[in-house]
Amino acid sequence: MDFTSDNAAGVAPEILAALARVNAGTERSYGDDAVTARLCQRFSELFEREVAVYPVVTGTAANALALAALTPPHGAVMCHELAHVHVDECGAPEMFSGGAKLVPLPGAAAKVDPAALEAALTALPAGVVHHVQPAALTLTQSTELGTVYMPDEIRALVEIARRRALRVHMDGARFANALATLALSPAEATWKAGIDIMSFGATKNGALAAEAVIVFDPALARDLAFRRKRAGHLLSKMRFVSAQLESYLDNDLWLRLAAHANAMARQLAKGFAAMPDATLCVEPQANEVFVRLRTTAIARLRKGGARFYPWPMPGDDEQARTIRLVTSFQSQPSEIDAFLALAAG
Amino acid sequence: MDFTSDNAAGVAPEILAALARVNAGTERSYGDDAVTARLCQRFSELFEREVAVYPVVTGTAANALALAALTPPHGAVMCHELAHVHVDECGAPEMFSGGAKLVPLPGAAAKVDPAALEAALTALPAGVVHHVQPAALTLTQSTELGTVYMPDEIRALVEIARRRALRVHMDGARFANALATLALSPAEATWKAGIDIMSFGATKNGALAAEAVIVFDPALARDLAFRRKRAGHLLSKMRFVSAQLESYLDNDLWLRLAAHANAMARQLAKGFAAMPDATLCVEPQANEVFVRLRTTAIARLRKGGARFYPWPMPGDDEQARTIRLVTSFQSQPSEIDAFLALAAG
Amino acid sequence: MDFTSDNAAGVAPEILAALARVNAGTERSYGDDAVTARLCQRFSELFEREVAVYPVVTGTAANALALAALTPPHGAVMCHELAHVHVDECGAPEMFSGGAKLVPLPGAAAKVDPAALEAALTALPAGVVHHVQPAALTLTQSTELGTVYMPDEIRALVEIARRRALRVHMDGARFANALATLALSPAEATWKAGIDIMSFGATKNGALAAEAVIVFDPALARDLAFRRKRAGHLLSKMRFVSAQLESYLDNDLWLRLAAHANAMARQLAKGFAAMPDATLCVEPQANEVFVRLRTTAIARLRKGGARFYPWPMPGDDEQARTIRLVTSFQSQPSEIDAFLALAAG
Amino acid sequence: MDFTSDNAAGVAPEILAALARVNAGTERSYGDDAVTARLCQRFSELFEREVAVYPVVTGTAANALALAALTPPHGAVMCHELAHVHVDECGAPEMFSGGAKLVPLPGAAAKVDPAALEAALTALPAGVVHHVQPAALTLTQSTELGTVYMPDEIRALVEIARRRALRVHMDGARFANALATLALSPAEATWKAGIDIMSFGATKNGALAAEAVIVFDPALARDLAFRRKRAGHLLSKMRFVSAQLESYLDNDLWLRLAAHANAMARQLAKGFAAMPDATLCVEPQANEVFVRLRTTAIARLRKGGARFYPWPMPGDDEQARTIRLVTSFQSQPSEIDAFLALAAG
Repeated sequence: MDFTSDNAAGVAPEILAALARVNAGTERSYGDDAVTARLCQRFSELFEREVAVYPVVTGTAANALALAALTPPHGAVMCHELAHVHVDECGAPEMFSGGAKLVPLPGAAAKVDPAALEAALTALPAGVVHHVQPAALTLTQSTELGTVYMPDEIRALVEIARRRALRVHMDGARFANALATLALSPAEATWKAGIDIMSFGATKNGALAAEAVIVFDPALARDLAFRRKRAGHLLSKMRFVSAQLESYLDNDLWLRLAAHANAMARQLAKGFAAMPDATLCVEPQANEVFVRLRTTAIARLRKGGARFYPWPMPGDDEQARTIRLVTSFQSQPSEIDAFLALAAG
Repeated sequence: MDFTSDNAAGVAPEILAALARVNAGTERSYGDDAVTARLCQRFSELFEREVAVYPVVTGTAANALALAALTPPHGAVMCHELAHVHVDECGAPEMFSGGAKLVPLPGAAAKVDPAALEAALTALPAGVVHHVQPAALTLTQSTELGTVYMPDEIRALVEIARRRALRVHMDGARFANALATLALSPAEATWKAGIDIMSFGATKNGALAAEAVIVFDPALARDLAFRRKRAGHLLSKMRFVSAQLESYLDNDLWLRLAAHANAMARQLAKGFAAMPDATLCVEPQANEVFVRLRTTAIARLRKGGARFYPWPMPGDDEQARTIRLVTSFQSQPSEIDAFLALAAG
Repeated sequence: MDFTSDNAAGVAPEILAALARVNAGTERSYGDDAVTARLCQRFSELFEREVAVYPVVTGTAANALALAALTPPHGAVMCHELAHVHVDECGAPEMFSGGAKLVPLPGAAAKVDPAALEAALTALPAGVVHHVQPAALTLTQSTELGTVYMPDEIRALVEIARRRALRVHMDGARFANALATLALSPAEATWKAGIDIMSFGATKNGALAAEAVIVFDPALARDLAFRRKRAGHLLSKMRFVSAQLESYLDNDLWLRLAAHANAMARQLAKGFAAMPDATLCVEPQANEVFVRLRTTAIARLRKGGARFYPWPMPGDDEQARTIRLVTSFQSQPSEIDAFLALAAG
Repeated sequence: MDFTSDNAAGVAPEILAALARVNAGTERSYGDDAVTARLCQRFSELFEREVAVYPVVTGTAANALALAALTPPHGAVMCHELAHVHVDECGAPEMFSGGAKLVPLPGAAAKVDPAALEAALTALPAGVVHHVQPAALTLTQSTELGTVYMPDEIRALVEIARRRALRVHMDGARFANALATLALSPAEATWKAGIDIMSFGATKNGALAAEAVIVFDPALARDLAFRRKRAGHLLSKMRFVSAQLESYLDNDLWLRLAAHANAMARQLAKGFAAMPDATLCVEPQANEVFVRLRTTAIARLRKGGARFYPWPMPGDDEQARTIRLVTSFQSQPSEIDAFLALAAG
């Protein structure tokens, strides 16, 4: 019963097998290999347009590289106040961009509030030399609270962003989990809704260490190869990263793994909905569940060996506190049942 | 017959097996796992002292993090003019240090010349605000020309560095190859000779993507955890990097793999020594051979399917040019023989 | 009737005269001159302790250098959400620190709220590698709303900061205006209340272009000389900056100029207090007045040639809006009277 | 007899007077003032084309801002190995560019050798991700050895640079001294010879603290306003910097001051030419003289109160050493005579 993070899970067997498969013989290094070439073609097909693909090994690297491609040092990145790039990456976007500023915005369910975005842009007028200049908007899909932006929500934000010539980034560390919920093609969920560049995550959903910066607008891609190398993120034996991503896409493995994780989260949510002393913070749409439980229940869960993080939320008190539960491709229905039983007492 | 780079090789079977071995169940993420804990202990034993260990996935990351730990933004890093950090990392040390300057120094056989180091330090006097301030010396072991610093050579350079309070870094991307040649313990080859921090490489010698910053002076380690995270080099599923390194050290795998690669280089060198039209640039002490061949021989080798890089050197002309040959743990004696036969014509 | 900014004023005659006075003959350049030496001694006397002094030409430079001396690239600077360093310096602290993050905090009257500071520090726990690490607190004295921190208010914030080992910076762009209000010595208003380093402003109060970073804790001063040079802020003919500051301190010129500007602001405030349709946002304690006037009055003022900036505030509506009025050492009582008469209609 | 630097001189009376002249009344701050507007127009006339003008207070700031406008963080700036930007600015170009690399090149008389430039560019091939990418060439006019590039020399270097799409910067800290020697218009000496951007110096030639980045290619100017602000180099009372430059250009003051300084250098050189034990390193073309004198003569000069810097050069020995003598607009013929008499013994 480990619900600390989808990062705590291991590697999907299909992906581990792919590593062995590409190991034979020598290969060109630094991404000039056949596997990476195939992968780029594959992503272009998946997204129904020519895309530039930069595989890396962490979501932080993908996000920081992508945002740095959009934002000059005197620029600003508009983001939700809970955004991983702002809260959990120890200033990586600041480092990669040469010191740009992240502007945290409020919004229910971890989604950027359009009015808050407008207000923040107004407060940083274009061309006024005293203020950092908004250059990018970043949206997390699925969000830090396990919710999912609908295409119309994205379009509304993109429209505001476009009026000020901002480019739009999607942090897709859990993109598969969002897509498994939305009835949309990858293209519809991204560039057709106005996304210019994305971090396409795989690690949290069964890869060993594999993410990719996907660039929908080729003009943005020019410097990325240099930025990646300079940041130490161009792997010499790149074929082993690309092979993970290739295997991840094969036979819709990524969507199947995500659908399973999402189903496990729904099973948890359903259980809590039926539990008198449990309150879901938000209806889960991906693989994360935020629930307020009585502290006695939390103590019982910990004693029973369950692992998870406390997640302080407004409304918590001495009697009841919020915890975060993250399911993964490895989560088992029996684990969910056992957890719910313990929580119910 | 692929001698382009040891990066072109795959992963040693023992290391690939280790990935599968640590895959069972969930684990704490971001390096708080049991494998990483074991690895740190293991490195302390290997180096016969308490060391701090920061696994990463590229040599560029290891070097840039280590140098940034030593060098303020207004600092200077003294290095050989052929040093990988200066020539081949697209400015990574500059990025990670916040804009420090690398000062390239001459020296035979790709080893920093002590007199050149002294002269360069004199030209950048301490406390003079107009000049960047020398803060670190970096030495590559084995060097970019496949030679190896003897402990006395290191000590002589360290002594000069110490007089100006510089810290000393070793770029050990091919440390195993150096150690397989030197009859020394890891401790003797590093901190006992004055090294403060090193990049301990494994990728070029059989790992998938695994290097480690090893810190001999704990005072230098303080900020490294933050620097690594901020650079996107803290992997969430770190156990899979640590497992590579653990397996690499098990049963002296690293030294056996390196000894094999070195033997293959010696076999090449021996062959060239017996070939009238071939001239070794320098006697190989690790797994790289630099040899000047007649252009007709080079053409014959390429036509025969051999792969390698041209390596322009002073003394090359229309008739004869220098090429670089890198052997790896995968190189086969039969490949060497075939290559030599083709070269001989 | 120019109330746009104290920056719009010229140079006090005493200070202009000082430039001519130090112009005779040659002098050592880059701050090794006799005027600068005298100035450093002078500041030590003024602050009743040995201080390190780094004259520069802008407040932005002083602030960015001071904060960079306190904050590593992975650090965070806690500040009020209206702080000049956060809002009006185009990311200078981010540039000089190598990408640190500014954490904007709420607080009435432009003063950091202690509870908000505590909460923000709790959200960025020490040693957790995912989060930037709070390293500095910066306080503006007088504040961006023309209010003044009382020593007890500073001490309370310093105490919270100290528990997390933060260093404390004072942005004293209008320090003279604060001091002219507080019945305190410079020492009491700064290091005796817990300030480690300050930006000592003169430009807004009668200098041509002269500020100084004053370092109360010598340990912080070490790298500042290099940082200043590297940022292009070490003037070759430094004597002309130091002479401005020396003249500024002579015969309490700085306090006299500030007292005059403050008196002009009080005269404005007194006039508005007697005006039925005017509402002061906050009682002015320095040389800035924020007042909500009917839009008809604002239009009448503009038509009458008065110059000032709109300053949107919560509570503004179609009928009444807030404007900012800044007085300076050059403001004349007759200007104030004329402005008030126009406003009254 | 102070020949340490033209920085040791004071301010020309005409320029000091201009400060007082623009002091009346209030003015728009941060460069929106009438003086600055006039100055920009004036520079466009001077250079016979529309130029963008960014006044700053140091040559280091001008150089670092200009180079940062040309060079991405992964870029390289080609420069002479004696270039002030490389040797004497404590890494300012690295800071402002976000970590670009300066590539020092040899060349007689402190002028970049065209063959060395070509070779260095070849060693950093375009598009190869491992290497920093050459983006700018910077030339110092007059040079660090007091020599002057002829337009043909500049054109030859520009042509090489253009083939690799490099932009070309001129460090004109002593541009007036160069122009006073060349029989050329400012336009001919700069953009007509291929210069894209320049640092136009005034401080060394009679200003208090005034330089300007002059941008000949408007496309390069876009971000400079933000870069200047962010670096703390946008002065609030900018009119006082612009007034210095305006006065500097009025009635050819700048050329008259420089012509005088140059004449003083020629008088020194003429004296040394007639002195048996003195050897000029290079024929002075601006206001710097490098001469090798017997150490006995040097001792005599010091004893006589002369001030100057030693300037170690190849060929110096125990008997004779090189010194640098810099003349300024303030140097007097009688000082030169006295110095020469002392040197002759």
